[in-house]
Amino acid sequence: MRTALCDRFGIDLPIVGFTPSEHVAAAISRAGGLGVLGCVRFNDAAELDKVLHWMDANTGGKPYGVDVVMPSTVPTEGSSVDLTKLIPDEHRAFVERTLAELGVPELPEGTDERAGVLGWLHSVARSHVEVALEHPIALIANALGSPPPDVIAQAHDHGVPVAALAGKAEHAVRHVDNGVDVVVAQGYEAGGHTGEIASMVLLPEIVDAVGERAPVLAAGGIGTGRQAAAALALGAEGVWTGSLWLATREYLETMPESEAMQRALVGATSADTVRTRIYTGKPARLLKTRWTEAWSSPEAPEPLPMPLQNLLVAPAHDRIHAAADPSVVSMPVGQIVGRLTEIRAVADVIEGLLADFESAVDRLDGVRGS
Amino acid sequence: MRTALCDRFGIDLPIVGFTPSEHVAAAISRAGGLGVLGCVRFNDAAELDKVLHWMDANTGGKPYGVDVVMPSTVPTEGSSVDLTKLIPDEHRAFVERTLAELGVPELPEGTDERAGVLGWLHSVARSHVEVALEHPIALIANALGSPPPDVIAQAHDHGVPVAALAGKAEHAVRHVDNGVDVVVAQGYEAGGHTGEIASMVLLPEIVDAVGERAPVLAAGGIGTGRQAAAALALGAEGVWTGSLWLATREYLETMPESEAMQRALVGATSADTVRTRIYTGKPARLLKTRWTEAWSSPEAPEPLPMPLQNLLVAPAHDRIHAAADPSVVSMPVGQIVGRLTEIRAVADVIEGLLADFESAVDRLDGVRGS
Repeated sequence: MRTALCDRFGIDLPIVGFTPSEHVAAAISRAGGLGVLGCVRFNDAAELDKVLHWMDANTGGKPYGVDVVMPSTVPTEGSSVDLTKLIPDEHRAFVERTLAELGVPELPEGTDERAGVLGWLHSVARSHVEVALEHPIALIANALGSPPPDVIAQAHDHGVPVAALAGKAEHAVRHVDNGVDVVVAQGYEAGGHTGEIASMVLLPEIVDAVGERAPVLAAGGIGTGRQAAAALALGAEGVWTGSLWLATREYLETMPESEAMQRALVGATSADTVRTRIYTGKPARLLKTRWTEAWSSPEAPEPLPMPLQNLLVAPAHDRIHAAADPSVVSMPVGQIVGRLTEIRAVADVIEGLLADFESAVDRLDGVRGS
Repeated sequence: MRTALCDRFGIDLPIVGFTPSEHVAAAISRAGGLGVLGCVRFNDAAELDKVLHWMDANTGGKPYGVDVVMPSTVPTEGSSVDLTKLIPDEHRAFVERTLAELGVPELPEGTDERAGVLGWLHSVARSHVEVALEHPIALIANALGSPPPDVIAQAHDHGVPVAALAGKAEHAVRHVDNGVDVVVAQGYEAGGHTGEIASMVLLPEIVDAVGERAPVLAAGGIGTGRQAAAALALGAEGVWTGSLWLATREYLETMPESEAMQRALVGATSADTVRTRIYTGKPARLLKTRWTEAWSSPEAPEPLPMPLQNLLVAPAHDRIHAAADPSVVSMPVGQIVGRLTEIRAVADVIEGLLADFESAVDRLDGVRGS
């Protein structure tokens, strides 16, 4: 399994793995793929810096990338204190009432409360970029399309290519016009922010629209080698995977408190996700749990726009996380969750994917046959 | 491009083409695929019988199938006169008002009004099966899952295999348990009735669930050879295509008044569809037009359950059809509509698909490379 992407990034396998866990990202890179560390969890750039130093020491010299969340235009900005004034009381009350109904306790007295997830703020995402560029990163990906032009220029000045997610062919064209180097075609079935066009249709459209100018990675629905083979048959130069890595042993090394979440993922089918605005204010696919169901009840308020919705729910997420109840989880995941049936090591996941890829290509060769 | 499906059905290509047009169905069969004629448009079984006689004379001795719409449990039944009493005045008034607002004129004086589309009724669908079994059909497909057990038995008594659509793996298992011979895995991106799981995820799940017991056809998002290659890599034994055939010359031979609809399809992108209950009462993907938009306005009533919704809108569809305005069309179509950029002959569509399939397999062979 080798494409031009491998030469471009100096990797053995055209498998890009997005994850908020540095242990997972490093393991993906060590196994021959490109681990991409999600930065949104770092409120503090110094904290990210420390983790990237760890990455530098633990990827065995293999390339890795980072993923930031940065709208191309600067949204409502300010400190979390300013912004929280914009959150209506009705929304706060709904969250409190819902957590009580779901049996999610308050955080223990004295817990250090996080001030929301500031990674969603433009200024914080910019500080992530600044810090990341001091490390030997191979890619900056932006989960919200093209970053602002000066950020793209800054990355290019450091010789670092930029990737951007696209849910429509016209967005992909705009990204490449803006100087983006790699397009991630994010199909409807993907976890996190996603559009309405499914991978089977979206991917070849984006390849036809920009494939001559930029490599296209397939995101959404990729969890097995068969799906990777399908993506490459559709013209992708590689695959962008995310959900797959949530059910790994290495994930627990970074976030040991995630066992309940992993139990929930392993128990879910492909029908157990929902595309909703409750996580960030923009449509994102999440695991369907009692928490997401509460938000789809008729009494639930409309989600707030980005970045307010995340500021609203971030403290609730902390409580949900601490409660460790698999029936009340708030986690972005794609429809591929139905394939997550056990917790495995990253290297085993990749080995299985490669074997399945070979079978799929063999099958297709047989089909061409006569 | 050859799979076990070819031997099973005595066809050259594992391409099944669903269409309400006998001219298209016959052309697909003549070109080496399996044309499947949609029967729902026939209110009168004698009319279907006549068209099947035409098929027998025009497929050049090649196999063809039929598609009926039959819930496995008998729904509200009765003549159209009985059922129409169950349609609320509010719904009728909304339809009348909307047609006026969209500038859709009344049918000309003296036009023979159809009594709704009775093909959705159980008794009518049964009459379709009766008539079809008097012809040398190679397949009966049911667009609503397993047909009732006695209908499956009746088909098998005539040596005719039965296919059923499935949008979840558990439905596919139930179909095969019920005696269904071929499963059509219908992804979210498909036109017409569809579930929420996209083809990239759904198809291999269904193959893993029933692939040892029944061949699986990939439906949803299949319009090019690349997509056919992806589907076969994912384990399908063939592809089930529908939207593709709406933009063919042969379609106009059956329904010459469909030029406005074809213009609308050719002008649409993959983002121009909507999944809604307004066509039949169950979620179905339609071309997004001023008609579907009107139904998503806050003043629009909730769609009625099947079969009432179709009885409500069928006379409106007749008026819309006669008005021939590409901006007001009511037509089931999948996200693949973005690939329909010109009106072609069926044989040319198939030729293009095969060439694209070969390129995709070549590309994948190159990827395996080192």
